[in-house]
Amino acid sequence: MTLPCKAIVCRDTHANGGWKMEDVITRKPGEGELLVEMVASGICHTDALIGGIPGGAAPIAFYPRVLGHEGSGYVKEVGKGVTVAQPGDPVLLSFAFCDSCAICKDGHRSHCLKFNDLNFGDVCRNFGDTSSTNGETNIGGAFFGQSSFASLSIVKQCSVVNAKDLVKNKQELQLFAPLGCGIQTGSGTVINAAQATSKDVVCIMGLGGVGLSAVMGAKIQGCRTIIGIDRIESRLELAKELGATHVIDGSKLPEGKSLGDVVAEYADGIGPTVTIDTTGVPALIKAGVAFTRNRGKIIQVGSPPFDFNLELETFSFMVSGKQFIGAIEGQAYPPEHVPKMIQWYREGRFPIDKFSKFIPAAEYEQGLHEMHEGTIIKPILVW
Amino acid sequence: MTLPCKAIVCRDTHANGGWKMEDVITRKPGEGELLVEMVASGICHTDALIGGIPGGAAPIAFYPRVLGHEGSGYVKEVGKGVTVAQPGDPVLLSFAFCDSCAICKDGHRSHCLKFNDLNFGDVCRNFGDTSSTNGETNIGGAFFGQSSFASLSIVKQCSVVNAKDLVKNKQELQLFAPLGCGIQTGSGTVINAAQATSKDVVCIMGLGGVGLSAVMGAKIQGCRTIIGIDRIESRLELAKELGATHVIDGSKLPEGKSLGDVVAEYADGIGPTVTIDTTGVPALIKAGVAFTRNRGKIIQVGSPPFDFNLELETFSFMVSGKQFIGAIEGQAYPPEHVPKMIQWYREGRFPIDKFSKFIPAAEYEQGLHEMHEGTIIKPILVW
Repeated sequence: MTLPCKAIVCRDTHANGGWKMEDVITRKPGEGELLVEMVASGICHTDALIGGIPGGAAPIAFYPRVLGHEGSGYVKEVGKGVTVAQPGDPVLLSFAFCDSCAICKDGHRSHCLKFNDLNFGDVCRNFGDTSSTNGETNIGGAFFGQSSFASLSIVKQCSVVNAKDLVKNKQELQLFAPLGCGIQTGSGTVINAAQATSKDVVCIMGLGGVGLSAVMGAKIQGCRTIIGIDRIESRLELAKELGATHVIDGSKLPEGKSLGDVVAEYADGIGPTVTIDTTGVPALIKAGVAFTRNRGKIIQVGSPPFDFNLELETFSFMVSGKQFIGAIEGQAYPPEHVPKMIQWYREGRFPIDKFSKFIPAAEYEQGLHEMHEGTIIKPILVW
Repeated sequence: MTLPCKAIVCRDTHANGGWKMEDVITRKPGEGELLVEMVASGICHTDALIGGIPGGAAPIAFYPRVLGHEGSGYVKEVGKGVTVAQPGDPVLLSFAFCDSCAICKDGHRSHCLKFNDLNFGDVCRNFGDTSSTNGETNIGGAFFGQSSFASLSIVKQCSVVNAKDLVKNKQELQLFAPLGCGIQTGSGTVINAAQATSKDVVCIMGLGGVGLSAVMGAKIQGCRTIIGIDRIESRLELAKELGATHVIDGSKLPEGKSLGDVVAEYADGIGPTVTIDTTGVPALIKAGVAFTRNRGKIIQVGSPPFDFNLELETFSFMVSGKQFIGAIEGQAYPPEHVPKMIQWYREGRFPIDKFSKFIPAAEYEQGLHEMHEGTIIKPILVW
């Protein structure tokens, strides 16, 4: 039996005009899978990144496929062995992990040894063309275990956080869709990866959804100084509203001063104790490594170009005692971190509604465009 | 008044034959300084490194100067404002720090913002030629605040650990001379920088004085697997005796296997949780970054060539969740860490005598040579 649905199908890169909203079919859930009727899906830069690589240029780049990895919805049906949720339950979706490697077993599922395969490169043909006469599926799903750019999608059990006891209504379920990726990444990086406290001077480069969530996380941790860097005035204003003690417009540095000079002015004259790069921009990553104070942490969160190699002057890095740390998904375990974020939201300390905007799924092109322009910080497609 | 003494004076690089034991003079201690009669000084690779840079090739390279930074001795005289010790007290010497920058104030003195200047580049002309008629001093001292390659030397107060209540006799004071640098570096890296526990699989590259001290530190921390890598059979044997659970001769890898393959065999198939490089060899540093498991720490302790830049594939490093950490002096505070090491020695858990060898100071060339060859692990010059 095949199930008709709508999905944003990528048949080629976005630049080549390969993304289209299409009528497709999906299949019944198999073992360890759930069929979820999406109500919303956040758009994240990672969707654009992966759907921008020419097919075959990397093992994780193939077409046709359905992206989307900040989904929320209601369970329609569950396959064999599913215990996380039942039909009718509201669910918030997050990344996939194997739960059997030594890293998962140590509790560090966001750095699962199979993370790349399971989240980016898993060739599960969960969708099919409506012209298929025998129900054959030929379009890739299971992006981050969920491929939530679809009105109906097969989701892996590991990607599911049951929201039955967490959300009050459908609108909340829609608002919370991005919690499982971008917002978790920002807040989790400050809390789990940096383990920042009131003693820390935190500098956050890039004030999109991840960066602003890091600002809120730093405020929740009581960090004594929170510096936000961006080039868009409205984001800088919002960062201040959300807890940044200082903001820097990187496009308007005072004459003769480097970014590091200005950061230092707000950071005891010697730089932040924690620098979080959410931009992936090589020049900013290099600047961050340089301007972080001795013994400080530089945490890489934004995706840099695949061919970028950071060069560390090894002797001086050693003497500095700095730490360069890779982190994804805020090193969070979603079933633990998502409820915390919802609790902070209810307490008024995590106002994600201030930077989220609902858009009909059919208008995803507009959402993508405005996200890149910076006029919308977190577009949430509504199905 | 000038004081006659003997010192190994570097008037040029070692390779140029610029090191000579000479009769020189030193001066009376000034404010915050002590005059110490050395009984011993360990030789460390950092002496060879700094005394191997052509004068003027780096801000920290100048001649003539007196090196040596693992000294021990008895206080002869103290300058104004010295409270750490009194004449007659035995002292163990360590690195210098400013104690006033924000990093020192946070307790991280080994990464003092002035570390380079104070330890490598401080142009204090504490020694002079005997031909000087007016007591003028023209030979650099204060290397690591101590310049202990001299029978008498002016030492900065910050570099002094008072050993009055720690050592029983002169022979112990000689044996403990290297505690304040190489041995502290090895043990402190495992304990302070890695914060290793019984859950950790630690891999130590290079089994000189620093590496073997890291092995002992890992054993004290109860690390479940301790892997030692070297190319000298006797060092591998000693590592096993001191606590390594596995050793690898990097010069005799099984056909078709990389170093990482062999390390993985001893490390749950996926690599160590902590890798410590004490060699500074670029190929080993790169291998260590690659073979450390996801979420693992790679700690750089050995001095790499000054012009070496480690290239990190930034995207994959981010996804791996690894951490590249610079650390010197074991991130230890000597007045706290030195007494701990002496206590472990008394308990039989830190048998530094197994890899230390006393040599008359006049035979320093032999000590340097054998240290490079690997036939002596820790040469201690006796004055």
